[in-house]
Amino acid sequence: MNQDIPARSKTAFIFDLDGTLLDSVYEHVAAWARALDDEKIDVPVWKVHRRIGMSGGLFSAALVRELGHEIGEDTKQRLRDLHANYYNAVSAGVKPLPGAVELLQHLTASGIAWAIATSSHIKTAGPVLAKLGVDPARQVVITRDQTRYAKPDPDLFLVAAEKLKVDITTCAVVGDAVWDMLAATRARALGIGFLSGGYGEQELRQAGAYRIFDGPADMLEHIDEVGGRR
Amino acid sequence: MNQDIPARSKTAFIFDLDGTLLDSVYEHVAAWARALDDEKIDVPVWKVHRRIGMSGGLFSAALVRELGHEIGEDTKQRLRDLHANYYNAVSAGVKPLPGAVELLQHLTASGIAWAIATSSHIKTAGPVLAKLGVDPARQVVITRDQTRYAKPDPDLFLVAAEKLKVDITTCAVVGDAVWDMLAATRARALGIGFLSGGYGEQELRQAGAYRIFDGPADMLEHIDEVGGRR
Repeated sequence: MNQDIPARSKTAFIFDLDGTLLDSVYEHVAAWARALDDEKIDVPVWKVHRRIGMSGGLFSAALVRELGHEIGEDTKQRLRDLHANYYNAVSAGVKPLPGAVELLQHLTASGIAWAIATSSHIKTAGPVLAKLGVDPARQVVITRDQTRYAKPDPDLFLVAAEKLKVDITTCAVVGDAVWDMLAATRARALGIGFLSGGYGEQELRQAGAYRIFDGPADMLEHIDEVGGRR
Repeated sequence: MNQDIPARSKTAFIFDLDGTLLDSVYEHVAAWARALDDEKIDVPVWKVHRRIGMSGGLFSAALVRELGHEIGEDTKQRLRDLHANYYNAVSAGVKPLPGAVELLQHLTASGIAWAIATSSHIKTAGPVLAKLGVDPARQVVITRDQTRYAKPDPDLFLVAAEKLKVDITTCAVVGDAVWDMLAATRARALGIGFLSGGYGEQELRQAGAYRIFDGPADMLEHIDEVGGRR
């Protein structure tokens, strides 16, 4: 063995939650659409879909650009509350994506570090983590509450790597949204894109994904190709 | 004027309905997802989304491939009924996409032939046509009831061209789904893709779209570039 070649670092995985491990993107879309409708704000639903997963503040800013006029702070707060209420009303019915539980179990059993990092607040994310068999007291789960900026800022992923005690440049970020891929690029992590949130493959590649899978089950089938070897 | 050059034929437009003129794709997705859930059939929602707009028969066939086992005719019928009931329960809240009404008005005022061709049955499509100011007694509207095969078979578009008394090769088919673009290609019409159904741009281009717009308002702004000049 050549002592001059440094040992290759093991890959650690940082997962987005909604649309990546949970089949919940369309419920979030519906909740935002109802909230906007209640506030008489007219935005086509596909544009809401394409903003899921980014921080609430940037979501509002994008909305303002779309509408071409400002919306007040009180309206923004009502939108956030309405969305949370509508989503929480249906989140009990949300299911893990096929293979999500098995993928996390495989990583744990293989001694590979992993974390979850989501733009959601713990009050939205908390109730659904149990469906994945994830206990935030025992696993690294980073939510919007722990960082000043959410995706596409890199902060959530940087904090996750820190908590995992790994270098971010040894991490692969797994997500379904362009916001995950953009934040991964800004964090100097690799991006792995999932189609399970309803984005197209090219959108994810253009945002920086180096590999694309249908979802967790597909990634688990190819886990040895992306650094997940036991 | 050179008499040897035949006059260029005027372009006629054939529009898909859901996701193209109406902001209704996500309601259809939710209705199918609930129907599948009721029948204890487990399919990730993004795969339902990607099948919206194709014929119900092919939708079922795709489902069977996805599940890896047959589903009975009675189950298929229950799924169709459940979907229709869930969709009709919310369709009163469905809105035209921005610019849809204006786009159709512009074509009519400009003496340009246009039609609507949808994979839906009239019992689903009928109640929402009024929102677009479309009267099926006065405009050409082709539904699933009038052809043996729906998209991605070309039949709906061929019948629409026939009813408009134009050659299909002078038609542009406008749709939000890859099934529209594939059916347009098979019909020898041009395909114009809209992002308003939630597909990615590349998916539509790969399925044959020669031009992409955000939706009706964007197309209306560029109408003189796609054969819609007065």
